[in-house]
Amino acid sequence: MQDFLTRDIEAGLHDVRASHPLVHSITNYVTVNDCANVLLALEASPIMSDEPEDVEDITSICNALVINIGTLNEQTIKGMKVAAARASELGHSIVLDPVGAGASRLRTRVATEILDAYDVTMIRGNMSEIKAVMSGARATRGVDVAFEDVITPENMRNQARIGMDLAQKTGCIVAITGPTDLVCSAESAYALNNGSAWQGRITGAGCMLSCVCGAFAGLYPEDSLRAALCAVGLMGIAGEMAALRMERIDGNASYRTYLLDALCRMSTEDVRVRLRMEKLI
Amino acid sequence: MQDFLTRDIEAGLHDVRASHPLVHSITNYVTVNDCANVLLALEASPIMSDEPEDVEDITSICNALVINIGTLNEQTIKGMKVAAARASELGHSIVLDPVGAGASRLRTRVATEILDAYDVTMIRGNMSEIKAVMSGARATRGVDVAFEDVITPENMRNQARIGMDLAQKTGCIVAITGPTDLVCSAESAYALNNGSAWQGRITGAGCMLSCVCGAFAGLYPEDSLRAALCAVGLMGIAGEMAALRMERIDGNASYRTYLLDALCRMSTEDVRVRLRMEKLI
Amino acid sequence: MQDFLTRDIEAGLHDVRASHPLVHSITNYVTVNDCANVLLALEASPIMSDEPEDVEDITSICNALVINIGTLNEQTIKGMKVAAARASELGHSIVLDPVGAGASRLRTRVATEILDAYDVTMIRGNMSEIKAVMSGARATRGVDVAFEDVITPENMRNQARIGMDLAQKTGCIVAITGPTDLVCSAESAYALNNGSAWQGRITGAGCMLSCVCGAFAGLYPEDSLRAALCAVGLMGIAGEMAALRMERIDGNASYRTYLLDALCRMSTEDVRVRLRMEKLI
Repeated sequence: MQDFLTRDIEAGLHDVRASHPLVHSITNYVTVNDCANVLLALEASPIMSDEPEDVEDITSICNALVINIGTLNEQTIKGMKVAAARASELGHSIVLDPVGAGASRLRTRVATEILDAYDVTMIRGNMSEIKAVMSGARATRGVDVAFEDVITPENMRNQARIGMDLAQKTGCIVAITGPTDLVCSAESAYALNNGSAWQGRITGAGCMLSCVCGAFAGLYPEDSLRAALCAVGLMGIAGEMAALRMERIDGNASYRTYLLDALCRMSTEDVRVRLRMEKLI
Repeated sequence: MQDFLTRDIEAGLHDVRASHPLVHSITNYVTVNDCANVLLALEASPIMSDEPEDVEDITSICNALVINIGTLNEQTIKGMKVAAARASELGHSIVLDPVGAGASRLRTRVATEILDAYDVTMIRGNMSEIKAVMSGARATRGVDVAFEDVITPENMRNQARIGMDLAQKTGCIVAITGPTDLVCSAESAYALNNGSAWQGRITGAGCMLSCVCGAFAGLYPEDSLRAALCAVGLMGIAGEMAALRMERIDGNASYRTYLLDALCRMSTEDVRVRLRMEKLI
Repeated sequence: MQDFLTRDIEAGLHDVRASHPLVHSITNYVTVNDCANVLLALEASPIMSDEPEDVEDITSICNALVINIGTLNEQTIKGMKVAAARASELGHSIVLDPVGAGASRLRTRVATEILDAYDVTMIRGNMSEIKAVMSGARATRGVDVAFEDVITPENMRNQARIGMDLAQKTGCIVAITGPTDLVCSAESAYALNNGSAWQGRITGAGCMLSCVCGAFAGLYPEDSLRAALCAVGLMGIAGEMAALRMERIDGNASYRTYLLDALCRMSTEDVRVRLRMEKLI
């Protein structure tokens, strides 16, 4: 297996802007606007549709499907399943963001059902959500990670083992985000150390990352590990560049703007200089 | 009964940032992103869920529930009622924002039903909405206050009496916002004179305030009057600070950013210097 | 028939700010917040409601109805039809934005049904959507215009003929947007050459324009051609002014802010100096 290097992430930034992947997202209504704009920042094309009668046609013309369970309802659950079935049939990449898995039985169940029944290729969540998907663990902080689940340099090897186990069990690439981000396949784990604490002070940082995962999963359908590393690496760098732009008067709303701006304006030189990615396992 | 002073609002800002209340919002899809970010600006945690099957679990792990009827549909009305029943059972604070009550029979009816059937602890609306909830009055300007209902220094004592009557009738604290904001219990009324006319030029200023009410209602479950004064006072100050940052080229979109930023960066010193709160009755 | 001139667009900017039209939008949840803020930028008043039981009351108090099919579901389709029936009955202007028509059979069908059954007064879309509404043509780029459908100075007369045909067939004014924008009645076509490529890098530029069309359609119910020219002209100028404000570090998120700001702060002098509108046919 290939080891991924900084130049692969640089190439990813170049490739996504050249190929404009079309990404179908079925996502929550809280952060959906940011999800569309983050894809446009990368020169990818977003399309949103959750009506069961509409999703087959829409997902058929797309390169990837992103399913985010942040605000489920009975109808959108149906839409997710119809879309996932069609995308599986067509061999399209599917990214699952199990927002709030563990915070309610419905969320844990829907995430598990989608993983079991369809060809999901990537899972992106925080550590509490990943544990809930893995074992049904209960979350205590809603859509935020529980304090004991935060990934740190000290616990990251153990956390990576959990991600690798889930990758093994599901056949997916697993991206777990936190102060340190982990990207795990069944055989390997990478740690990425970019980003900023400000990302925890806006809604949608995770949802946006999942959509970016979708863009790269559509770009590299044969290599979801590379796709996940590109997405996590570039969003981390954008998060860091946005934090550098913050002035004393700027708060979380300005940070949201700067984050999208940074991804929009990022150069491959920024990637080369800033990326802190290491192969852990 | 205690009279509230500036130092209580300063303490509120400190306390909310230290305790990170988790707030469940069932709100409209127009301003929901701003609602999540305003809670994060205060270091509170937002979670949104409106599916009847999901809301019991979600509201159970939260400190307060905010119900905003800005874009009702049949399913979310069910979700609101299931959540309100569970929150009432658990003794959680419930904030109701009757957006557009008076503008349609459905909105007036749903607001009234929720007030009648569940233990709502706080109502936050503009004067037209408050009158509609009180008496079924018809609104003429949709989700905006009717011109004749705008609270001014001249009419504020009379308006406060309406708020106190509603507080008496419902057992809630009533927060009525406008150029002057009023916070009323059955026995007392406070006027707050912060804020900016720019708040009327963005969507969601009221919805955001209702979520901030939810954060403080979760923080001070035994004292909803204090909670409402903190929320209204701090948002008013943020509104004023944001207006000071406006340049000639900045319009309502920049104002929205500055408003969230101001709440995010506000110091207790800002509260001490700026708050203009007086006990009216 | 009157030929419209720059001074008519200047007058439109003045008039809309003086009359505060109330616009009912049934729109997608992706860009709905921007839709509300763009109306507020113009000093118009937005109200959103899609529940079948709510929409009759809401549309009755408004000056115009905007129907945007960007994220359809079974319930909102019902809401659109109930609202359109009531608005037709009351003689209110109705603007249809057929987002993604051609990208799915459901979208093409719903757009066509609404056009056929109700008194739609204006259609606003990109050229791929207009062709889909005209003839059932399939879209290949989701909600984006297909590359071969982009309006350019070279093909604009031919494209205008398609718009005029649709205007003839439906009795609507047809606004088609792209690098050059076209506004067509059955008898005439105008080309407008303002705007910026940045408008294609944010979600919602089209949706916002459709809401602005709604504001002017409410203002000039007897003259939808004038209404469409005002809306398209002012949004194009705002797009151009926003682009002038971009710095090297600013990306699509800053552009979104600047676009709304520009509309909010635009002077009639800006219109006079910048508008590039010509009567083609």
